[in-house]
Amino acid sequence: MAVGAPRNRKPTLFIIGGAEDRLGKATVLRRFVRLAGGRNARIALIPTASSFQGEVAEAYHDVFTRLGAPDPVVVNPQDRQAAHDPELVARLDGATGIFMSGGSQLKLSQRLPGTPLGDALHRAHERGAVIGGTSAGASIMSQFMISMGDEGITPRQRHSQLSAGLGLLEGVVIDQHFAQRSRYGRLMSMVAASPSLIGIGIDEDTAIEVRNRTTFTVHGSGAVFVLDCREAVSDAPEARRGAPLMVSGAVVHSLPAGATFDLSEVRLVDFVEKHPDVAVALASAKA
Amino acid sequence: MAVGAPRNRKPTLFIIGGAEDRLGKATVLRRFVRLAGGRNARIALIPTASSFQGEVAEAYHDVFTRLGAPDPVVVNPQDRQAAHDPELVARLDGATGIFMSGGSQLKLSQRLPGTPLGDALHRAHERGAVIGGTSAGASIMSQFMISMGDEGITPRQRHSQLSAGLGLLEGVVIDQHFAQRSRYGRLMSMVAASPSLIGIGIDEDTAIEVRNRTTFTVHGSGAVFVLDCREAVSDAPEARRGAPLMVSGAVVHSLPAGATFDLSEVRLVDFVEKHPDVAVALASAKA
Repeated sequence: MAVGAPRNRKPTLFIIGGAEDRLGKATVLRRFVRLAGGRNARIALIPTASSFQGEVAEAYHDVFTRLGAPDPVVVNPQDRQAAHDPELVARLDGATGIFMSGGSQLKLSQRLPGTPLGDALHRAHERGAVIGGTSAGASIMSQFMISMGDEGITPRQRHSQLSAGLGLLEGVVIDQHFAQRSRYGRLMSMVAASPSLIGIGIDEDTAIEVRNRTTFTVHGSGAVFVLDCREAVSDAPEARRGAPLMVSGAVVHSLPAGATFDLSEVRLVDFVEKHPDVAVALASAKA
Repeated sequence: MAVGAPRNRKPTLFIIGGAEDRLGKATVLRRFVRLAGGRNARIALIPTASSFQGEVAEAYHDVFTRLGAPDPVVVNPQDRQAAHDPELVARLDGATGIFMSGGSQLKLSQRLPGTPLGDALHRAHERGAVIGGTSAGASIMSQFMISMGDEGITPRQRHSQLSAGLGLLEGVVIDQHFAQRSRYGRLMSMVAASPSLIGIGIDEDTAIEVRNRTTFTVHGSGAVFVLDCREAVSDAPEARRGAPLMVSGAVVHSLPAGATFDLSEVRLVDFVEKHPDVAVALASAKA
């Protein structure tokens, strides 16, 4: 393999639900580095969403190099105008992997969609560089992005709002810190109101690896929820502000590591139990 | 109407998710009193699940009489033997409404199912007395009862267990304090492992009124979740203890006040938006 060549040529997204392990086995980030080309990777880091951009850039520099990648370059536009800087664009154009940190997704939505940097992200995706992001960096990837909302499992009227994301993944809304911040209700209220969208809720330290814009596989220690309201009935057009929404007939998938899901058919296509040692031990104990 | 005659003759359960309003409009308990016969009601109160039986009996005495019912009688067996007391049985046999308080459902499961008091509850249900219960008093009604479990939206392996309830409602598992204690995961793990059962999760200050063992209508300020895993795929037989469960294709209904649901067909059959004043105001504003 030529130095710096990406390990895969298929458009790949790597979308993390936040708070991924960086200090231990780093299962999730290890997979990202591998997809980016390992020791041949050229990683561009976008710490822009964070309130602590320097610290965040340093932390990811440390974990990526510990996992075998060369030093990443940093791309950190401070406003929308800076997202036109040809030097920053060139850094993304040269990358085999791009990683967007957590923080405020509204900072990202101000500086990436519709700018030359945003265009470079789309080009990178087309040519098979892996686009990774965690937390806010995860939410910005979809066409529609949840930008705020309350906690809880009950879907409620007008407790969240959508903004425009990058659109690297169409037809979905991505939410993160899903179980940890109990965001089932806010994501369900979004897809109940927009049943053409599929909701994807990703737990912390958990990621989906999306191939060819249609199929994803789950990695990490938590689960991924898929909320499908295409056939559901809802009072979203009528309910008053704050009221519990009626959503009847939503199809819900909760998917741990090892599950592969087809987003175009909206169904599970493969599952490999990720703890064969424990499974075998239990089976032996029963036998 | 004859004094003391029940207002309805159809087998009726009134199952409350706990923490129902007693001091304000008391919408949920008002409905229970009405179903029991209003000023002609003969209510028997079972405070047995509680650690504060005296206080609980007094609190329900106060609210039921404030809502127009005559003084309730108390049925409070202190052990399984006491549940054979003919005097207590007679109090249930004479009631048009029976109400079980919250507390520990394992106290109820020790003293009611399979005892003469439990038989009296079944007879009361048959003849059309309304059987009400809140929190623990709600869980004990179903055939299978969740007796413990952790919080969170992620279904996990072996985080909950089932015990035998009264079986007034068959084919379901009832959970309570549903959104407030984030019990989506524990209920989903139960129905994923036992897909012949339908999960019903009831929020606080919210109730289902079950008629003829098949159809329920929602009352109160929260929502009721119905979890249906009959067509779902799960790794519940293989997953290791504590692992996030794979549950793909669960059908989920979240139902606020005004929704009527058929448990035999497992589908919404009617919905009346319960805030017509606000709906009309919004419609006018748009027009």
